[in-house]
Amino acid sequence: MPPELGSEACVDGDAALARAFGFLGKRWNAMILAALASGPAGFAEISRGIEPISDSVLSGRLSELAGAGLVARKVDSGPPVSVTYSLTPSAVELIPALQQIAIWAQQNLAD
Amino acid sequence: MPPELGSEACVDGDAALARAFGFLGKRWNAMILAALASGPAGFAEISRGIEPISDSVLSGRLSELAGAGLVARKVDSGPPVSVTYSLTPSAVELIPALQQIAIWAQQNLAD
Repeated sequence: MPPELGSEACVDGDAALARAFGFLGKRWNAMILAALASGPAGFAEISRGIEPISDSVLSGRLSELAGAGLVARKVDSGPPVSVTYSLTPSAVELIPALQQIAIWAQQNLAD
Repeated sequence: MPPELGSEACVDGDAALARAFGFLGKRWNAMILAALASGPAGFAEISRGIEPISDSVLSGRLSELAGAGLVARKVDSGPPVSVTYSLTPSAVELIPALQQIAIWAQQNLAD
């Protein structure tokens, strides 16, 4: 059953929204997903795209996002060894909503 | 210019996304907007809809949301005095994206 936002009967949808924002609202998470929206990327590339994130924080966030099933990590044994991150199909489904929110923020949210 | 998520040229869109999630990601803010999506409501009604928020936190969040131009506060001098909160047109534009995210979270994000 799809959630009906604002309906009193909609406890499930509200809980899902809280869960999503508890997660996406954590600093950098939405940015990392956005950075991967254009395609797979290596650690350094993601880091450059969303600085000033530190390497240890980015590393932690990528592990979290992988744990939640949003980011996939692919290791190419090389040499040289290279690791590539990409969005899972589930995360890809989220991108249009993130894009809508970015457009909305540009038009409606002051700097 | 609409943002292109993930494009390196898209600093504006990424900044807007960070701004939006810095704001929506703050605990309760998205829930409060969702609670008002079905129409104007008084303080007690909003509070009941998204408990366990405390009155002082809800009061602070409503002020913040009003300051950001997302919630309008209307005072009816009564008697008895009553205060009603509602979404501004700008906030109404955000609701479909929040709804998409809630649906996505129900389908893709574990409890």
